Amino acid sequence: MQRIKTALTELLGIDHPILLAPMGSAAGGKLAAAVTQAGGLGIIGSGYADREAVARELTAAGNTRVGVGFILWALDQRPEVLDVALAAKPPVIMLSFGDPAPYAGAIKAAGSKLICQVQTLEAARQAVQAGADILIAQGRDAGGHAGTTRGTMGFVPAVVDLAGAIPVVAAGGIADGRGLAAALALGAAGVLMGTRFTAAKESLFDEVLKQGVIDAGGDDTEQTRVFDIVRGAGWPERFPGRAVKNAFLDKWRDREGELQTVWREEEKAYAASAPADLSTRVLWTGEGVDLVHEVLPAIEIVERIVAEAISVLERGARLLAR
Amino acid sequence: MQRIKTALTELLGIDHPILLAPMGSAAGGKLAAAVTQAGGLGIIGSGYADREAVARELTAAGNTRVGVGFILWALDQRPEVLDVALAAKPPVIMLSFGDPAPYAGAIKAAGSKLICQVQTLEAARQAVQAGADILIAQGRDAGGHAGTTRGTMGFVPAVVDLAGAIPVVAAGGIADGRGLAAALALGAAGVLMGTRFTAAKESLFDEVLKQGVIDAGGDDTEQTRVFDIVRGAGWPERFPGRAVKNAFLDKWRDREGELQTVWREEEKAYAASAPADLSTRVLWTGEGVDLVHEVLPAIEIVERIVAEAISVLERGARLLAR
Repeated sequence: MQRIKTALTELLGIDHPILLAPMGSAAGGKLAAAVTQAGGLGIIGSGYADREAVARELTAAGNTRVGVGFILWALDQRPEVLDVALAAKPPVIMLSFGDPAPYAGAIKAAGSKLICQVQTLEAARQAVQAGADILIAQGRDAGGHAGTTRGTMGFVPAVVDLAGAIPVVAAGGIADGRGLAAALALGAAGVLMGTRFTAAKESLFDEVLKQGVIDAGGDDTEQTRVFDIVRGAGWPERFPGRAVKNAFLDKWRDREGELQTVWREEEKAYAASAPADLSTRVLWTGEGVDLVHEVLPAIEIVERIVAEAISVLERGARLLAR
Repeated sequence: MQRIKTALTELLGIDHPILLAPMGSAAGGKLAAAVTQAGGLGIIGSGYADREAVARELTAAGNTRVGVGFILWALDQRPEVLDVALAAKPPVIMLSFGDPAPYAGAIKAAGSKLICQVQTLEAARQAVQAGADILIAQGRDAGGHAGTTRGTMGFVPAVVDLAGAIPVVAAGGIADGRGLAAALALGAAGVLMGTRFTAAKESLFDEVLKQGVIDAGGDDTEQTRVFDIVRGAGWPERFPGRAVKNAFLDKWRDREGELQTVWREEEKAYAASAPADLSTRVLWTGEGVDLVHEVLPAIEIVERIVAEAISVLERGARLLAR
C-alpha cells in the first residue's frame, strides 16, 4: 500500500499519520490495538484516570504497541495512575484538558513521547513550554469534550505557526481522507480521529450507539454541559461535550444551573434509563459524523482514509494549470 | 503566474478560486474591483439591502466585473433593491441568511449566477432546491455573521456530498494559501474570504480597524449578539456575529435580554463613542485572523495565497511514499 510520510509517521515510527482519540467510552485496548495494527497509532482512553480501566485495556491491547490518554483535571486527582500507564512503556502518553507541566518529566523519563492536546493558542504555548513532543490542535468541531474558543480550520495553521519544529496533529470534524488531506494542507503532520472510530467494529460502543452514529448528522450535534452535569462528571465549564441532541438535552438546555441543583435525583433517573434509550442517554459525536456511513473494522477505516487522502493529494497536484 | 483550475474558476471565468465576502463594512466597490482585477471575484456588500450603498459601490467598482451580496432577511424588507443590483448585470448575486427561493427566478432571468451561502445541511438542501449555481458552506469559524451549528472542517465535505455537481465554496477560518489548499482537499472548488480582505489596502475599514485586525488573535474572538442588539440591527438570533472581545462585550455578555430592553439608551452611548475606540466599537473578525500580519493591496493578498496554495498542493503530492 502507498503511504503518506510526515513528521508524525517518522517520529512515531508508524505507517499512516492517523491517531485514535483516547475516548473513554470507545477507545479500549481492542480498538487501540486494531488501529496500531492498521498502521496508525491507537491510544487507550483512561476514563477519569481510572486505574482499573488503564490496567484492563492495556491487557486487552495485548502485545500491540498502544498509547494511553489522560484527562488532566482527572489525573490531577489521581496522579499515581500515570505510573500504571508508564509501567507498560507506552510509546506515547497523551494529555488533555489541563496543565501538562507536572507530568512531563515522568513521561519523558519513562521514554514515552508526550502528546499534548490543546484547544487555544494560549494552551499551545504552555504545552510547548512543558516540552510537548507532539501537539494536537483540537477544534470545537470535535465530538465529546473540547474547548469552545477555536474551530479546526483556522486553529490548526495558527498552532503550526507557533509550534516551530514540533509536529502538529489536527483534530475535530475529520472523518475521511478529505479531512486527512486537508489537515496536511493546513500544515498538520497527521490527524487524531474519534467519531469515525466510535463506529469501528472494535469500538467499546455497543450496537445501539454505533447505529446512532451511523444515523446522526452533523446538524444534530451541539456542545453541551447537560450530560456532564447529570452524570456528576466534574468537567470544567470551559470543556463542554459535543453530543447528538435528544429529548433529555432539549429538556435541560439553558437550564444548566437548575440541573446542577437537582442532579442527584436526575442522575438516578438517567442511570435507570435503558442504555439503548438514546432519547435520554448521551451519544458523543463530532461534526464529522455526516461522513460516517457504516460500521467497519478499524483496518478498513484506516486503509480507506489513507487511500482517499492519497487520491486527494494526487488530484490536488493535477489542479495546477499554466 | 501558475493557476489553480477548478469548477469555480471555469463556471465564473476567473483566474483564481477566491471570492471576496460581501461584508457591508469592508467590501465596497473599490475592494471588490481590486479582487476581481487580481483574478478572483469581488462581491460588494449591500449592507441591509441599502439602495444607496448598492448604487454607490457599484459606481465605485467602475467597469470592473463585480457581484453583489444580500442579507436575505434584510432583502425581504426591501426586495426592490435587488433590481438596483440586477440592473448592473452582475456576474453573480450572493444570498445569505434566509430563504433564497423568492429571488432565484429574477436573478437567473437577469443572467446572473445565483450563489447561496448556507450554514446548515438543511439550508444547503433548500438552496439546491432553489436552483443555486454555487453553494458557499460557511462555518461558524467565520468573522461577522454566521450560523452556530457547523464548523468549516466537517461542514464542507458534508455539503460537497450533498451538492452533487454544484460547486461548493468554503468559508470560515480561511486566510492563507494553506486554507485554500485545505478547502480544495475537502472537495470545495474555492474559498470565500472576509477577514483577510478587511485588512486589504482597498477595504472600507479605516486604519484603526485594519490595525485592530493585524493585532487580534483568533483566541480573542467570539460569536455574540451584543453588538447587533446595541445597534438595533435586527439580526435573527440564530446568526450571531464573530467579533473581537472588548470591554463593551465583556459588560453585556450573558445579559443580552437586559440589553434588549435598554438598547435605545445604550445605542446613543455606543454611537457617541469614538469610531477609533475599539474598547466599545465592534471589530468583526473570523478565526483566520491569526494568519493576517499586514495590510496589503488586494492583488498581493490574492497572489500570495495562490502561490502558497500551489506550493502546498505540490508538497502534498511529494508526501507520497511507497
